[in-house]
Amino acid sequence: MSALSTYLATHQQRFRDELFEFLRIPSVSARSEHAADLQACAAWLRDKMQAAGLTTTIHETPGHPIVLGEWRGAGASAPTILVYGHYDVQPVEPLELWDSPPFEPEIRDGRIYARGSVDDKGQLYLHVKAIEAHLATAGRLPCNVIVLAEGEEEVGSDNLAAFVEAQAARLACDGVVISDSAMFAPGQPSILSSLRGLAYFQIDLEGPTVDLHSGSYGGAVVNPAMALARILATFHDADGRVAIPGFYDAVREWEPDVRAQIRTLPFDDAHFQAETGASALGGEAGWTTLERIWCRPTCEVNGLLSGYTGEGAKTVLPSRAMAKVSCRLVPDQAPGAIGDLMRRHVARVAPAGVRVTVTELHGGNPWRARLEGALFDAGRRALQRAYGKAPVIVGEGGSIPVVHDFARVLGAPVLLMGFGLPGENAHAPNEWMSEENYVKGTAAAAWLWEELGGGASGA
Amino acid sequence: MSALSTYLATHQQRFRDELFEFLRIPSVSARSEHAADLQACAAWLRDKMQAAGLTTTIHETPGHPIVLGEWRGAGASAPTILVYGHYDVQPVEPLELWDSPPFEPEIRDGRIYARGSVDDKGQLYLHVKAIEAHLATAGRLPCNVIVLAEGEEEVGSDNLAAFVEAQAARLACDGVVISDSAMFAPGQPSILSSLRGLAYFQIDLEGPTVDLHSGSYGGAVVNPAMALARILATFHDADGRVAIPGFYDAVREWEPDVRAQIRTLPFDDAHFQAETGASALGGEAGWTTLERIWCRPTCEVNGLLSGYTGEGAKTVLPSRAMAKVSCRLVPDQAPGAIGDLMRRHVARVAPAGVRVTVTELHGGNPWRARLEGALFDAGRRALQRAYGKAPVIVGEGGSIPVVHDFARVLGAPVLLMGFGLPGENAHAPNEWMSEENYVKGTAAAAWLWEELGGGASGA
Repeated sequence: MSALSTYLATHQQRFRDELFEFLRIPSVSARSEHAADLQACAAWLRDKMQAAGLTTTIHETPGHPIVLGEWRGAGASAPTILVYGHYDVQPVEPLELWDSPPFEPEIRDGRIYARGSVDDKGQLYLHVKAIEAHLATAGRLPCNVIVLAEGEEEVGSDNLAAFVEAQAARLACDGVVISDSAMFAPGQPSILSSLRGLAYFQIDLEGPTVDLHSGSYGGAVVNPAMALARILATFHDADGRVAIPGFYDAVREWEPDVRAQIRTLPFDDAHFQAETGASALGGEAGWTTLERIWCRPTCEVNGLLSGYTGEGAKTVLPSRAMAKVSCRLVPDQAPGAIGDLMRRHVARVAPAGVRVTVTELHGGNPWRARLEGALFDAGRRALQRAYGKAPVIVGEGGSIPVVHDFARVLGAPVLLMGFGLPGENAHAPNEWMSEENYVKGTAAAAWLWEELGGGASGA
Repeated sequence: MSALSTYLATHQQRFRDELFEFLRIPSVSARSEHAADLQACAAWLRDKMQAAGLTTTIHETPGHPIVLGEWRGAGASAPTILVYGHYDVQPVEPLELWDSPPFEPEIRDGRIYARGSVDDKGQLYLHVKAIEAHLATAGRLPCNVIVLAEGEEEVGSDNLAAFVEAQAARLACDGVVISDSAMFAPGQPSILSSLRGLAYFQIDLEGPTVDLHSGSYGGAVVNPAMALARILATFHDADGRVAIPGFYDAVREWEPDVRAQIRTLPFDDAHFQAETGASALGGEAGWTTLERIWCRPTCEVNGLLSGYTGEGAKTVLPSRAMAKVSCRLVPDQAPGAIGDLMRRHVARVAPAGVRVTVTELHGGNPWRARLEGALFDAGRRALQRAYGKAPVIVGEGGSIPVVHDFARVLGAPVLLMGFGLPGENAHAPNEWMSEENYVKGTAAAAWLWEELGGGASGA
């Protein structure tokens, strides 16, 4: 065994303990009451990155801080690789559905349960540990390294693009590595080649000034909740296609060979359905489940609120109704253009008697990788070594908006090697990360530097 | 002037002073801390009814007591009339919005401001005073009289129906008189001839077991919030008619002359709209605003809840979606039958991939008066004499469930002659009753007995 392998094996328990410390910090970026926790989390991460041998700085933003760690010891002629991750996490509600407290990590059945375990603290921290292992054993890395951790990924990375643009010279690199995604199946390493973008809206309807008595007014005053339902019902046709005019105009056709490879992946609809607990699958006619998630854009309701929602009956005609609605986008749909289509469509179908506002809450561009180049090849070999199996090329229905920003601003290829797994509840109660993947992911991250440096010194 | 007229004029000031005493008792039935006040209020009312010449009893219930006053001196061959009212009042919060303390009655601009002034202490007590006037001047009434005052109207009259059923023989009567509603306009006496019923449902949709990431699953899993919107959107057609099959089958046509009379009432849509604050009115095509509220059944969304409803964006595909939905009913629609239609319709339009449950939360029957008979005619004449103007026939979009109970259990016609006015704030801060209507209402109540006895002995 190499010194590197030995180091990884020897310090495995400590790596996990440190991750648990990281997970105990409730860094919920969407909640203003957690602002101090985000600061504390950034400071904790900065200290750990510093201890790993990186030179660290914290960059305040109008939102939550960005933590930067750098090691420039490979010299100006060596390539520079930027590792990106995020230390903020999703809200935890509904809390009562968690089997263990979200910020008290607990291992059950080989899974590390905690908010942020897989999204993205575990996947970010394994890179810090892989870098530590190289610097501790060899005193160097084959490339210059930048680790960039932000605290606003779950709220739209509002301040990241500006930071990357402002620091473009400092962040100049030959490739970007991100682990914030899932493997296709347990034991099957995967390289993620496409991400959907996002256009997220809040639709607010206002009818009467206050909630009215549904007896004294019902039937003569337009009901905002019913009007909202009728608006939302126009968003799809009977075949599950989005019916907002112009919605598909910018969609680029998928390459036939990639689409063919997707169809060869062993995917079991019945298993997928059982995993969700839904009584049937559904979606746009003419596409398989994986294609619906990876290759096709969507329009979903994320939340609804109106009137009386407590126990029992209250006969109000609500004053207001609200829907959170978001579209997942594929190349070359753009969030701004989709926002224009959405606003125009809603204005056209909204009835008289309600005031309707469509607010864009955030947006992200879709992305598709070039499946070639030194970084891509090194990633493929590193994953093969860690898992003993060649990675497959997969897509992802979710969004990592920064991928598009990195590709655009830094002009560098992006390698997405994720260590999550299907069913990990990334944005739901009982989020978990496979303990095995935390260990093998750390190894793969360590091998990646070797492969970038010209191959293994011996595994 | 008759002795009766003289008595009413002579004692007007005392009648008002006694009402003020009644109003000073904070008989808020919804608040357990007021339980003793309800008891005190019932005792006060019992004493006053006794002093007026009625034989009184107090009937304890699992909630607040029922006060009964009887005068059976007209003999077995004379008709018996039951007067119903309630001595409990709504809560007073928000207290800071009252211009004078809710339990310190104060007259401003000809209005008696106090909680319970119009709903229903003033309208109940004027009947007690009218009976007193008859017994004090003539020593008798032309009918046997029962006054039934409950203390739980504002909390659903939970114990009234059981009491009426248990005491059906004692309460047997030829007519019921209730003053607990409003006149169409100042100076315009009104007989309320219809009430809408209610069928209240909760519709629950369950899709995936937990909230899913809308990126990782969106497009392939049926979205319960979107499915709910699509179900709700089937409840009406483009003309605002309820599109649930069979919904109108049991609707009894409105008598053409009553409908024609409603259309002659001076109703200002622009004023009504301004009062609601809505940007336009709406509803079922082909009906006026008053008809939509009084004569037509509705289907309204009272509440919506699904997924993420907090600040900002959260990309969940919700596990569940809930709507509170209620139908206002008109004769001869029945809540149970409407429930069957609702369940059948929802089951038919619900998509695969969601489990749908329709739960009936609450129901009440609609009611329509027969606009004929001795009681109705006597009421019309009494109001004409008191106001110098013929009463109009009005409807009410809300429900007074006890009306249906009296009609059902006692099999007697119900006369609703109300002395409230639009804008009286019955359930809001600054509740008031017109001082003039308290005086004229007492007179109308007094004339009612004369008219039932065969007409005025001379006004």
